[in-house]
Amino acid sequence: MNYLEFVEWGYKPSPDELICLFRVEPSHGFSFDEAVGRVASESSNGTWTEVFVSEEVRKLSAKAYEKTNGYVKIAYPVNLFEPGNMPQILSSIAGNIFGMKAVANLRLEDVYWPPKIVETFKGPKHGINGVRETLKVKNRPLTATVPKPKVGMTPDEHSWAAYEIWVGGVDIVKDDENLTSQRFNRFKERVEKTLRMREKAEGETGERKCYMPNISAETGEMIKRAEAVRDLGGEYVMIDILTCGWASLQTIRERNEELNLILHAHRAFHAAFTRNPKHGMSMKVVAEAARLVGVDQLHVGTVVGKLESPLKDVAALIKILREEKINENMDLKLLNKNWQKLKPVLPVSSGGLHPGLIPEVMKIFGVNVLIQVGGGVLGHPDGVRSGAAAVRQAIEAVSKGISLKEYAVNHKELSRALEKWGYIKPK
Amino acid sequence: MNYLEFVEWGYKPSPDELICLFRVEPSHGFSFDEAVGRVASESSNGTWTEVFVSEEVRKLSAKAYEKTNGYVKIAYPVNLFEPGNMPQILSSIAGNIFGMKAVANLRLEDVYWPPKIVETFKGPKHGINGVRETLKVKNRPLTATVPKPKVGMTPDEHSWAAYEIWVGGVDIVKDDENLTSQRFNRFKERVEKTLRMREKAEGETGERKCYMPNISAETGEMIKRAEAVRDLGGEYVMIDILTCGWASLQTIRERNEELNLILHAHRAFHAAFTRNPKHGMSMKVVAEAARLVGVDQLHVGTVVGKLESPLKDVAALIKILREEKINENMDLKLLNKNWQKLKPVLPVSSGGLHPGLIPEVMKIFGVNVLIQVGGGVLGHPDGVRSGAAAVRQAIEAVSKGISLKEYAVNHKELSRALEKWGYIKPK
Repeated sequence: MNYLEFVEWGYKPSPDELICLFRVEPSHGFSFDEAVGRVASESSNGTWTEVFVSEEVRKLSAKAYEKTNGYVKIAYPVNLFEPGNMPQILSSIAGNIFGMKAVANLRLEDVYWPPKIVETFKGPKHGINGVRETLKVKNRPLTATVPKPKVGMTPDEHSWAAYEIWVGGVDIVKDDENLTSQRFNRFKERVEKTLRMREKAEGETGERKCYMPNISAETGEMIKRAEAVRDLGGEYVMIDILTCGWASLQTIRERNEELNLILHAHRAFHAAFTRNPKHGMSMKVVAEAARLVGVDQLHVGTVVGKLESPLKDVAALIKILREEKINENMDLKLLNKNWQKLKPVLPVSSGGLHPGLIPEVMKIFGVNVLIQVGGGVLGHPDGVRSGAAAVRQAIEAVSKGISLKEYAVNHKELSRALEKWGYIKPK
Repeated sequence: MNYLEFVEWGYKPSPDELICLFRVEPSHGFSFDEAVGRVASESSNGTWTEVFVSEEVRKLSAKAYEKTNGYVKIAYPVNLFEPGNMPQILSSIAGNIFGMKAVANLRLEDVYWPPKIVETFKGPKHGINGVRETLKVKNRPLTATVPKPKVGMTPDEHSWAAYEIWVGGVDIVKDDENLTSQRFNRFKERVEKTLRMREKAEGETGERKCYMPNISAETGEMIKRAEAVRDLGGEYVMIDILTCGWASLQTIRERNEELNLILHAHRAFHAAFTRNPKHGMSMKVVAEAARLVGVDQLHVGTVVGKLESPLKDVAALIKILREEKINENMDLKLLNKNWQKLKPVLPVSSGGLHPGLIPEVMKIFGVNVLIQVGGGVLGHPDGVRSGAAAVRQAIEAVSKGISLKEYAVNHKELSRALEKWGYIKPK
């Protein structure tokens, strides 16, 4: 088949076809249509030279059917894909094509997942409602803190910091994405000691408190660590989903039918391929794959923190994780979605946050968010407990419609945090 | 700790430290040293604001110690890492840092892996010698072909194409990275039928022939498929290592102690993060992680085919996979290596090759390579068997030091291939 057989401007795909929105920048010497045809060919059933193809095979060809300002939609017959196999789907629509000489840059911006694919994935076990029921928190953002320094503390130091964080008012203590089971802080000892302190914190505060230990490792070891967490009475595990990978995430999700843990997904490594708007794969596609496979919480950025996350990107990610249906929105470069029975995922806002930034975060996210503040708690001038209290006070202020400055007048912890991070002048 | 505490120009790291070579491009408003300090901080034990750190924690700080033309070397204390845990190591040195606002672009170019890390990984089970013993081929490149069209054939059509490929003279039949277990071609039926044809082809040719079925899927399913291959008498499995991910690859390698299969690694998705020389993670680091975890064969590009793979990159990858020790080579942006007992990995050259390109490929790779020709076999004007024969003839010609044109005079299949792909004029 010639490349141009993979281009049919004006073709109307059926709702059963999977659709990709690509930004295509042809290399020198290639026309737009030729570059697009080669992308559609390589990602479906074509190759670089003509070979004999039967009518049956021809039915599996992808078709580029719509183009606007360098963006193109390509429709893929659903039978190209193995149902429920995320690595296979990504190897097709996000595989060799990024390296083709025919394209100078290629970006997979978004995907429409047809019902025949959506139905073959489990989706979140708990979702937003399940998380809220576990924490018994209804109408405010949930809060989490990574004890800092993020690596280097012993299990005793770690569990003590966790206790201070909890009693200060934060709901969840989270491991750093770099903390697994290093020599200075072995996994099982840390989980045991931290969960013991959790009981103490719950007793003293009368609130539900949770701990999210990072189980990222070889798949078998991850399962062992997840089982250990459950056996020790934990409700949560955390996974670095991109450095672990989709095959192992699917495995953990399978096993989670009995483990019944809440899966917190960290996205370390994503910016290696999501950050350049002209090339690679967008975070939207990562979020969609994560909702399909079935994480309960996912990091999506802050807009205002230390990590690059533009407002439009974050707005699109919030929709992808929380809504059931989305209509095509070319401003956000979003295709239609219909997640059917797949539960919504709680977005996590994390990276360089402190109490002074919480009003902006809540303006962007509303209340259905997990706000993760690490350095902005541990760096509080009066210590961890005061840092945690300041976070909770900032959320209270926003919920009551009071400005942070005003609320800080009668809330010393918040006041001191705002001073420290330059939001009000020290008295 | 202040960012600048992570910068110590002139510091001499010990051979026990892990070293990363980064290309750092600061964002507007950040000095080079500040951007570098933030990268070293975020990827080790720092955070964005100052928090209390003990002396013990301070020992885990990374140190930027050498800079040249935008490139910087950062040394990481080995105790930062969990031995044998590839996801954890990558979450540290290739995690959040790519998304930091302080850098406009950040590229992880290469890694020096200290003995204390190298020793904790298994490396290849078979390596180049094991592969050669299995195929009983000593002093020439090995050859493989993906039956094309790469998706859409039934198991019967697939196994028949495989037979033709083998009897034509190719050593190995390989699945496409997109072919796993779709409706049109279920995994087990394909493997059964193809391995049956393999016996026939071996009987007729008197040569050893192999088949590499693609097991990429959820980890548990991958293991089942690997077991099925072994039970059916296969020696090889193929994995899309990046869309499956490092945790599952480690799991397959663990299980491979008993399965004893040759692991063929495809790199679909890599160019999403390796292609931009200013940002992301280089293919060198992927190749190093793959050798550590223990694949036996890995795709590294062709230089001359359809996929972008510059000569310098391929040259560096060949060294990484095949050599035991490498001295720092700043022209190739390579740090020192000492793989100790880790066996060498067979590089695979694949993507848009045909017989006319084989002399160039062999000039680059020598004989220790698996040359994968798909369309360049299946697209032969006289059919698959002639296409396979032409590949073998091209390798013979190079081995004998005869030009393809000259060799083609008495080798019809090669002659017809060279005509088809424009290397000689049709008679």
